[in-house]
Amino acid sequence: VVRSASPRLARRSDDLVGSLIDSSTSLLAAQRHDVVRFAVGAPNEELIPVDDFDRYFGQPSPGKYDYGSSEGEAHFIETVVELLAAYGEDTRPDRLVITAGGMQGLDIAFKMFVDPGDLVVVESPTYTNGLSTALSYGASVLEVPVDDNGMVVEYLPELVASTGSVPQAVYVIPNFQNPSGTTLSLERRLMLLELVDRWDCVLIDDDPYGLLRFEGRDIPTFRQLDPHNRHVFSVRTMSKILAPGLRVGWIDASPEFRQLIVNSKQAMDTCTNVPAQMAMDGYLRSGSFDSHLAFLRETYRERKHAMVAAVDELLGEDAIHTSPEGGLFLWLRLQGRLAGIDTSELFHLALKRGVAFIPGPAFTRTDRFTDSLRLGYATSNNERIRVGVERLADSLEMVLAQLTGDFP
Amino acid sequence: VVRSASPRLARRSDDLVGSLIDSSTSLLAAQRHDVVRFAVGAPNEELIPVDDFDRYFGQPSPGKYDYGSSEGEAHFIETVVELLAAYGEDTRPDRLVITAGGMQGLDIAFKMFVDPGDLVVVESPTYTNGLSTALSYGASVLEVPVDDNGMVVEYLPELVASTGSVPQAVYVIPNFQNPSGTTLSLERRLMLLELVDRWDCVLIDDDPYGLLRFEGRDIPTFRQLDPHNRHVFSVRTMSKILAPGLRVGWIDASPEFRQLIVNSKQAMDTCTNVPAQMAMDGYLRSGSFDSHLAFLRETYRERKHAMVAAVDELLGEDAIHTSPEGGLFLWLRLQGRLAGIDTSELFHLALKRGVAFIPGPAFTRTDRFTDSLRLGYATSNNERIRVGVERLADSLEMVLAQLTGDFP
Repeated sequence: VVRSASPRLARRSDDLVGSLIDSSTSLLAAQRHDVVRFAVGAPNEELIPVDDFDRYFGQPSPGKYDYGSSEGEAHFIETVVELLAAYGEDTRPDRLVITAGGMQGLDIAFKMFVDPGDLVVVESPTYTNGLSTALSYGASVLEVPVDDNGMVVEYLPELVASTGSVPQAVYVIPNFQNPSGTTLSLERRLMLLELVDRWDCVLIDDDPYGLLRFEGRDIPTFRQLDPHNRHVFSVRTMSKILAPGLRVGWIDASPEFRQLIVNSKQAMDTCTNVPAQMAMDGYLRSGSFDSHLAFLRETYRERKHAMVAAVDELLGEDAIHTSPEGGLFLWLRLQGRLAGIDTSELFHLALKRGVAFIPGPAFTRTDRFTDSLRLGYATSNNERIRVGVERLADSLEMVLAQLTGDFP
Repeated sequence: VVRSASPRLARRSDDLVGSLIDSSTSLLAAQRHDVVRFAVGAPNEELIPVDDFDRYFGQPSPGKYDYGSSEGEAHFIETVVELLAAYGEDTRPDRLVITAGGMQGLDIAFKMFVDPGDLVVVESPTYTNGLSTALSYGASVLEVPVDDNGMVVEYLPELVASTGSVPQAVYVIPNFQNPSGTTLSLERRLMLLELVDRWDCVLIDDDPYGLLRFEGRDIPTFRQLDPHNRHVFSVRTMSKILAPGLRVGWIDASPEFRQLIVNSKQAMDTCTNVPAQMAMDGYLRSGSFDSHLAFLRETYRERKHAMVAAVDELLGEDAIHTSPEGGLFLWLRLQGRLAGIDTSELFHLALKRGVAFIPGPAFTRTDRFTDSLRLGYATSNNERIRVGVERLADSLEMVLAQLTGDFP
């Protein structure tokens, strides 16, 4: 019997592009030599309250191993509401659904709002996995440039008009954007709110980093600016402020969408891991969160400055970088002597030499950003950051020598 | 400013139908009176190795709170491979991807293989969430009747021909099917393998219950029958044999699909909860699993017989039911005096009287099974099962009295 090679895939499978960021996690885990992990966008172990979590995870609790409610554990939802209130964002239990990290929030948003061919506006560069998820639902993606004040919303009406379509969703990371580290200005936030009202489309407000401001002044969130705007669909996660491996986040959206959010989630994973919700609940109720967050902010601030200092000293005029006021990422563009180096090619050599980053092309579907890369400063202490930037600078010199034929 | 009501949903949103099963979890959690939980398809707490899990969850481990690899923790994958080998199913690490329960395995399968309008064959009745997930990708669903030997595969060629399409996927629960409790015969398994080869379509082999056989003889799995058949896409979970709240399962598929499976998962949740993988890994490595599984099988067997005895005694000729040789579910159809009672209406009254089940219409998109219901015997001990069936019988009598105008 001659058997056909394999079952037919969906046409959609061409758009299941995956995430270089996530794949770097496996790649790094497989390395046997010392690597400075600038590729990672998460706190490292010393910044996670590991002992506390171990303790809360070990505590008995009724229902801990049973199916949970699809919308999340009721007690945990109350805890999140109180936490948010303490940090200036009023919400209510009927606006929240607990998700498997921020990613599942995005998965649900695109599932609910985007059909194949629908126009979705994203920042350029944007978060790889958000883009992947939009594409997995057949989105037609419009990438809008980012400058030091986030997405250049002023360009948006004309760029959208040129497509001949009205957007079905605008996907934006307003604070310390992944990967650029830039923050959307107040003026642009207000403009965006007007535009999504005009277009009657959803504003997917992906804000994993908002609580991680370590410099400058807070800018009101979309929800603070317009608490009852039904177009705002907010996606949040604890991955960057507590621990990513727990996969716990939430959606904050108009209650009218709650049933559809729950329905979507029931077609994905039934419910979010219950022990993780309970452990996080215990931790948040313990009152340790405020000091932990203050500690994180201060640490991230120091690490950002350590990275900026090393980059400025070692790459000088040959690189420009953003100067984030919070979050985890520095975005770096090669210029001068280093112009023309392809960061995707640089990646392999740099990994061998002991430093990992995410090349710029991972953050776009266009051919832009071959000269750029994302550096995460949260995962390494100041000394390791210095070592990593040295290795990066060395790797750049080697590639440069290869390009110019001037092997050292 | 007059603001439009809310953002436009995707057309797909009409097909985000959710799951009555999952919603019953929240509904039951909200009840303040005593309810026998026949609606639940999972072991109850006394059948879960709670203390062991608490201990393993509390153990420190490097990387426990960090992002995990999207394909799953390497050590845990090895553990699963060894477990499966011990139970007669040879597989390899490069065939496995760890998922957030079996549900995410289904989500990935339908995402990879089903475009809007594609024909998907399912059992009738079938698992509510599997159906929901297929619909969420726009599947055109063909329901094929189930008899005492599972899906009536003999009908399949003609039913498919009548649609004018070739299936893109066949979704089947071969062992102790949810909700019917029936098992697909060997002859029909072989026929299905031939058909998916002929149609060159994926066979989504959803088998959460296979290890829970407590009577009769094992029938080889699709993979045992045809180990290298690339059409077989197997979805597994630990929810029914260890604990559902952990949300840990896996896909076992041809390695050629691994990258696309990983890509799909990266657009969903990045990685599966790491502490749950590690706790389960610790438990499985401890060597307690074999005796635990033996205990579960014996307990489920006893409970099934307790339920059958109570149903036979209290409903007698007015109900017929399946006689599962494993798994968690009895499927019951009302007849005789009870014919004409709508189980969806019965549900509300029965819940008030302290017994919950899943009405038959939850398991189909047709108008069938209004006279049927699913009873889960795993969640209640023998005494509670008796109480629950008594309450069910009382509720049926009340509805009957209402229907006949003969109020007691």
